[in-house]
Amino acid sequence: MKQNILYAQSGGVTPVINASACGVIETARDNRNRIGKVFAAKDGIIGALREELIDTSKERKADITALRNTPGGAFGSCRYKLKSLEESKREYERLVEVLRAHNIGHFFYNGGGDSADTAYKVSQIADTLGYPVQCIGIPKTIDNDLPITDCCPGFGSVAKYVAVSIMEASLDVESMASSSTKVFVLEVMGRHAGWIAAAGGLACREKGDPPHIILFPEVPFKQQPFLKRVRESVRKYGYCSIVVSEGVRDYRGRFLADAGTRDAFGHAQLGGVAPVVANMIKAKLGYKYHWAVSDYLQRSARHVASATDLDQAYSVGQAAVEFALEGKNGVMPVIKRLADKPYKWTVAEARLSEVANKEKMMPKRFITRDGFGITPSARKYLEPLIHGEAYPPYKKDGLPDYVRLQKHMVEKKLPDFKV
Amino acid sequence: MKQNILYAQSGGVTPVINASACGVIETARDNRNRIGKVFAAKDGIIGALREELIDTSKERKADITALRNTPGGAFGSCRYKLKSLEESKREYERLVEVLRAHNIGHFFYNGGGDSADTAYKVSQIADTLGYPVQCIGIPKTIDNDLPITDCCPGFGSVAKYVAVSIMEASLDVESMASSSTKVFVLEVMGRHAGWIAAAGGLACREKGDPPHIILFPEVPFKQQPFLKRVRESVRKYGYCSIVVSEGVRDYRGRFLADAGTRDAFGHAQLGGVAPVVANMIKAKLGYKYHWAVSDYLQRSARHVASATDLDQAYSVGQAAVEFALEGKNGVMPVIKRLADKPYKWTVAEARLSEVANKEKMMPKRFITRDGFGITPSARKYLEPLIHGEAYPPYKKDGLPDYVRLQKHMVEKKLPDFKV
Repeated sequence: MKQNILYAQSGGVTPVINASACGVIETARDNRNRIGKVFAAKDGIIGALREELIDTSKERKADITALRNTPGGAFGSCRYKLKSLEESKREYERLVEVLRAHNIGHFFYNGGGDSADTAYKVSQIADTLGYPVQCIGIPKTIDNDLPITDCCPGFGSVAKYVAVSIMEASLDVESMASSSTKVFVLEVMGRHAGWIAAAGGLACREKGDPPHIILFPEVPFKQQPFLKRVRESVRKYGYCSIVVSEGVRDYRGRFLADAGTRDAFGHAQLGGVAPVVANMIKAKLGYKYHWAVSDYLQRSARHVASATDLDQAYSVGQAAVEFALEGKNGVMPVIKRLADKPYKWTVAEARLSEVANKEKMMPKRFITRDGFGITPSARKYLEPLIHGEAYPPYKKDGLPDYVRLQKHMVEKKLPDFKV
Repeated sequence: MKQNILYAQSGGVTPVINASACGVIETARDNRNRIGKVFAAKDGIIGALREELIDTSKERKADITALRNTPGGAFGSCRYKLKSLEESKREYERLVEVLRAHNIGHFFYNGGGDSADTAYKVSQIADTLGYPVQCIGIPKTIDNDLPITDCCPGFGSVAKYVAVSIMEASLDVESMASSSTKVFVLEVMGRHAGWIAAAGGLACREKGDPPHIILFPEVPFKQQPFLKRVRESVRKYGYCSIVVSEGVRDYRGRFLADAGTRDAFGHAQLGGVAPVVANMIKAKLGYKYHWAVSDYLQRSARHVASATDLDQAYSVGQAAVEFALEGKNGVMPVIKRLADKPYKWTVAEARLSEVANKEKMMPKRFITRDGFGITPSARKYLEPLIHGEAYPPYKKDGLPDYVRLQKHMVEKKLPDFKV
């Protein structure tokens, strides 16, 4: 008997997570004879536990195709981590109940390391509870910190956004630097690892090109060498363009963004390492500055997505269905790099148990010895990930034609469950 | 005898100011039989005074064409306002000396209201000093505050960037809002007028669409109605998406961004109204928030420029040369709107004396009565300005192919001049 798929999005969304959803749904539709419907959990695992399931079979074909071009998480996502089997037993059991009630034989969890862990645990408990389900992880994270996979769908597009943005803003600063703003600071995401900040370095094609300084979370911040480098850049190039990761810490491990800033009421002012760095430069060197914090803009910028990233996001969704059809369980499709130049990749298979709860940090050899830039190895790794443009269609009103799904809910069969 | 053109960029640059330069240079090249070379002042009027002139005739054809696709100010710009003829007499006289020394018969000043004023004054003094020069202003400003012209080249692209960005980031927030971030605040430029903030409203195609709140500099900020609206949006839509102009002030006229925030040393923390607004929401309503400050990113985002804006920027450059060939002086090509739907426009002629030193504020009828949104009239005006996509070419490395000119300097003929 054909069984249904439950697809859930997990954690922070990306510009291309919906492309993975599109890959899942289109591939399942192409295999109607062997597989049932694709249900999508509303707002991630929380919706799965609440039995809030969206019946994607009722969505129009064109709308499913348009998922490929739409940022955000079309079915909703959440940050909600199931703990160990013991601690969260009630929830794992409920999840299996929901799967059973809706004849779901395949659980696809589209997320990062935590989600791989959850999917792995579900695959274990389902067996125990006498309702076997094939659990398949689908990789996604702008943080690029999953192990085994060469890169994480979502990262390449954020990388492209950051590299394009710092290149453009630097041209702006350069134009005015002789008599006005001399320093520009762009803050990017990446609390634990500098993958996104490193991507800014791609804009530096030739020596002297911006960004002149990258501040990585991997490199403890030291004011003196930093200010020295700022001054040198301004002297040499007329200006200094800086990419700073939100996760930069001082030598005592404290976030620079928490550097004691207080609002009018004396409350700690949260967030914004860019203004901290910019104000430090102004106070110590006197240069006029500008700063930007791209925040969610970088994470949703489908309008400047990487074609490579988009293809990979679609392919891992597609592969999840293929793995399911092959009867696989406890696995995740991953990106395997076959060649750097010209870049070639394929989808391979990893065990969820090996992906779960492991963070892939940026190798030390990716950061230049002075701590302020990326090495040729880093460029060799990063560059292919931003290859190609994949613009969304635009409406006549000059704005992207992003789809909003109908979201027909599947009728509930179980009692309510409090999450 | 054929005379040369001096072209100078002035004030803050835009994603398409180089398209105007391209229009000037290409049109002048097409009329080689009637017009001399195009010299470009290095770093704006400062370079003109210092006799630092770039000979654009030595640039390759393909590079000039590529100016159309390159943000920033390719020849450099500056913020340097010549004062009245009396106060800045020395500088006006020097400028005329430079024009005379290099057989320059046409001075094109590509900027905002101040530049129109300078060009107007040069046209007067040149006559007095016995060296007639045709002064032509070329409009440019992301602030959209020049009078007479229907819109200002540069604004449409920033408008498109802001509308696309808030649309995308809102999709991201919406995905996660049920269990995570509920409020997103995007800060945009516009210290005196809310044109750019208003453009964010274009993302709101249907009632309930984000942005749910726009904070304009034209509307004194009141905390209570604002917080009430934030709460209502979160209740109705699950989240609240906000565009805030950097120029928002309270009822006493103080910038919200200067709301007494202090850094660790007790210094006033400059800039960033988005974090002020976000922290206020957190403190009063408890919602989790994210905020972004797009700063120069919005002003340099050629990668998502408006095709309409790009065409207009090119056309005013082209028209400047045509006006010069017709012997005109003291004029500025402006955009005249012929129809809203379908949008039609043409280039018309305005007197510099009428453009100079006048600011076009946003009409009151463009802001909804509650002060938090844009009206259908505003949409009718704004929408055509973001029509069409005009992507820059990309290199194989996944980044835009922005040009860097050779900048061959013209040999100096005059003694040094201190600016």
